[in-house]
Amino acid sequence: MKVDGLDFKTVWMEGEIVYMIEQNQLPFRFQIFESHLYSDTCFAIQTMIVRGAGAIGVSAGFAMAQAVIAAPEEGYAEFLQKAKAEIEATRPTAQNLFAAVNKVFEAALLSPERAIDVAHEIAGKDASDNMKIGIYGNELIKDGMRIETHCNAGWLAFTDYGTALSPIYIAHRHNKKVFVWVDETRPRSQGARLTAWELQNEEVPHTIIADNAGAYYMANGKVDIMIVGADRIAANGDTANKIGTLEKAIAAKYYGIPFYIAAPTSTIDMNCPTGAEIPIEFRSADELLYQSGIDADQNMHTIRVAAPMSNAENPAFDVTPAELISGIITEKGIVKPQALHSLFK
Amino acid sequence: MKVDGLDFKTVWMEGEIVYMIEQNQLPFRFQIFESHLYSDTCFAIQTMIVRGAGAIGVSAGFAMAQAVIAAPEEGYAEFLQKAKAEIEATRPTAQNLFAAVNKVFEAALLSPERAIDVAHEIAGKDASDNMKIGIYGNELIKDGMRIETHCNAGWLAFTDYGTALSPIYIAHRHNKKVFVWVDETRPRSQGARLTAWELQNEEVPHTIIADNAGAYYMANGKVDIMIVGADRIAANGDTANKIGTLEKAIAAKYYGIPFYIAAPTSTIDMNCPTGAEIPIEFRSADELLYQSGIDADQNMHTIRVAAPMSNAENPAFDVTPAELISGIITEKGIVKPQALHSLFK
Repeated sequence: MKVDGLDFKTVWMEGEIVYMIEQNQLPFRFQIFESHLYSDTCFAIQTMIVRGAGAIGVSAGFAMAQAVIAAPEEGYAEFLQKAKAEIEATRPTAQNLFAAVNKVFEAALLSPERAIDVAHEIAGKDASDNMKIGIYGNELIKDGMRIETHCNAGWLAFTDYGTALSPIYIAHRHNKKVFVWVDETRPRSQGARLTAWELQNEEVPHTIIADNAGAYYMANGKVDIMIVGADRIAANGDTANKIGTLEKAIAAKYYGIPFYIAAPTSTIDMNCPTGAEIPIEFRSADELLYQSGIDADQNMHTIRVAAPMSNAENPAFDVTPAELISGIITEKGIVKPQALHSLFK
Repeated sequence: MKVDGLDFKTVWMEGEIVYMIEQNQLPFRFQIFESHLYSDTCFAIQTMIVRGAGAIGVSAGFAMAQAVIAAPEEGYAEFLQKAKAEIEATRPTAQNLFAAVNKVFEAALLSPERAIDVAHEIAGKDASDNMKIGIYGNELIKDGMRIETHCNAGWLAFTDYGTALSPIYIAHRHNKKVFVWVDETRPRSQGARLTAWELQNEEVPHTIIADNAGAYYMANGKVDIMIVGADRIAANGDTANKIGTLEKAIAAKYYGIPFYIAAPTSTIDMNCPTGAEIPIEFRSADELLYQSGIDADQNMHTIRVAAPMSNAENPAFDVTPAELISGIITEKGIVKPQALHSLFK
């Protein structure tokens, strides 16, 4: 996707070097992090230079490939075992990370060349799956539509295209007139910071709104469709996504507005029967009580934005019941949340 | 109400001096603004040293009383006319301001003493009406209840008690165990800043949550009742209040949670047939794109918290349809939104 008019991916590998957009500097500074060693790539995953399910998986695959390149002939397997454990320890709950590392590791036991190919294949499949989500999702978007989205399910969370934003990018490239309401997405403001930054670079018209304002625009007939991403989808279609998704889904239902989830089929967990079994991560209260940004001189500050003695609670995700979801847009097509099994036949 | 254990009102008058809590320094600094002249009180209203419908009305009444004290014998009525116009120009959309200024002005034409009495009566009635709202609302609050509130409809917006928070304070003083979920209330964060600060000072247990998290707590059975304030109530019960109120009301309905409005009957506009006729104020996008707070050294900063090139839209209020409201708590009792006329018989 575009950054200042130039094509970029979130993460890519050339020779033995892995390049990444430094996401914890966005949207205020655009910098590329260059990693020459698998341990540098581990550092990047750990410190959230790279974030987002897809992008973490691809980065971990590349890290494993870097380890393969660096591995000595003598003690080759032992070296890779150690590297694998290090990479896996960076973000221990990231499903895609384990899948990617394992694939590259197993290929490496056959041949180093094959391992490097597999790492690049993982990156390629991430991008092509997301493009397919965009092509299927584009069918839902009519010329002139105003689309609301929550959080950042854009290309920064993957290698290219993204999930919820992919249909918007494809529609925009097909010269459909589209407009996006970007939920700020407190407390980490991924909407106001990352989604807005992506849309700005792709020249998609958009406006940031407070999370509080979603229902106002729905009530006034200014939202035609809502599309969001997913962190995990249970077998019955219940969907965990960024906190606040549930509230939007309820409001969309009240106003009869179509509400879609966009996610690759790897997000669907058929071993998880319902949303009740999805654990919800609680993150630091400081995410809500403090906020970071830049002043007029471009200096970063972290400031307290709440009453000094009060505390906060910060659930990072919520679960939207399947009954509130119009459909799930995957790389294999759009299905009703009640029909997920049809994707795995 | 309490501040650091001492009793305060938001605004009060002693002799010719009007005292006010400096609200634009809260929650980071607690200071009292001292106004010796009606023009200083005008300045305080204009610069939001004092804010909130009730508190503005009381301050304007005191300003008019200050003008009466300062008025020369010769040209008395002309002096007051000029002062009245100046006070009215400070916040030209504040309904309570005009009502208070008129009452004091008319009394002043009879006698200066009567005018000063009337200004104090307005302040007294504001506090006693809000206390009555608390006494009626307290009947809804059972021991152990967890109450969610949005924005700041506390005593800082009036002279004492507040509206949505008044039932909570009365319940707390009756030794009921209560707990409050405080919506942050972006973009101006009146929940995280003012409501949390009030509750902290009154020692009411509370926790700040992102506006996005409301439905999560409702879905998980952790909200027993929701009480919010109102900026204007139409004759059919539709209620305008801080942006985000509508979304909470829809979610509360979905989960079967009682949703109450607390407001004095002066907020009810029987000349406004439905919510569709209530104009919605759009405020500066900067409220969403920038945020202020203090750093670790207690220095104030204003920082950009959104993508640098993107814009925002900022509706300050929304309208909750009467069908989503369980009841309206007034100083005359609790009524269904469909039965407002019974209050004016």
